[in-house]
Amino acid sequence: MIDLLICYDVSTQTEAGRRRLRRVAKICVAHGQRVQNSVFEVSVTDVQLLTLRQKLLEAMDVTEDSIRIYRLRQPREKFVEAHGLDQYVDFSEPLIL
Amino acid sequence: MIDLLICYDVSTQTEAGRRRLRRVAKICVAHGQRVQNSVFEVSVTDVQLLTLRQKLLEAMDVTEDSIRIYRLRQPREKFVEAHGLDQYVDFSEPLIL
Repeated sequence: MIDLLICYDVSTQTEAGRRRLRRVAKICVAHGQRVQNSVFEVSVTDVQLLTLRQKLLEAMDVTEDSIRIYRLRQPREKFVEAHGLDQYVDFSEPLIL
Repeated sequence: MIDLLICYDVSTQTEAGRRRLRRVAKICVAHGQRVQNSVFEVSVTDVQLLTLRQKLLEAMDVTEDSIRIYRLRQPREKFVEAHGLDQYVDFSEPLIL
């Protein structure tokens, strides 16, 4: 699996922008989770990456928005640190509720 | 040098939030560049990372905002792709104006 970080820059001042953000969020969350309002961590196969990229390109407005996709280093716990509100849930660990 | 991606999640609905974003942007841009409205790519030494982290923690509101710091894979060109508006400038290449 390939671990990706997807950062989506969109103006949420307009309803159209908020709609695109919801659409992008839905596409990303199908393969991972939302860690910030417009930042997502996803895990995909090579084939899924092709579909994911295609869907993102269709959902975004290329003349107004920006999407950046970073391949994350493994293991992710070692190369990411979070401060403040942390929305990440490690689904590979047992959930303590 | 360590290449980092810094994602800052802050509500820009309030003047206080916008002020914190400006402050965080200023701290990050001293070591790199703003690639999206609240996403920054920076390069720092181990020692600079300590100061940078400290400054970010002081600038953010830990009860309201989120900052995520990712160590990027090298070479960055190979592991990042940008779609739509791209604000990144490769300062290591000759600038063609």
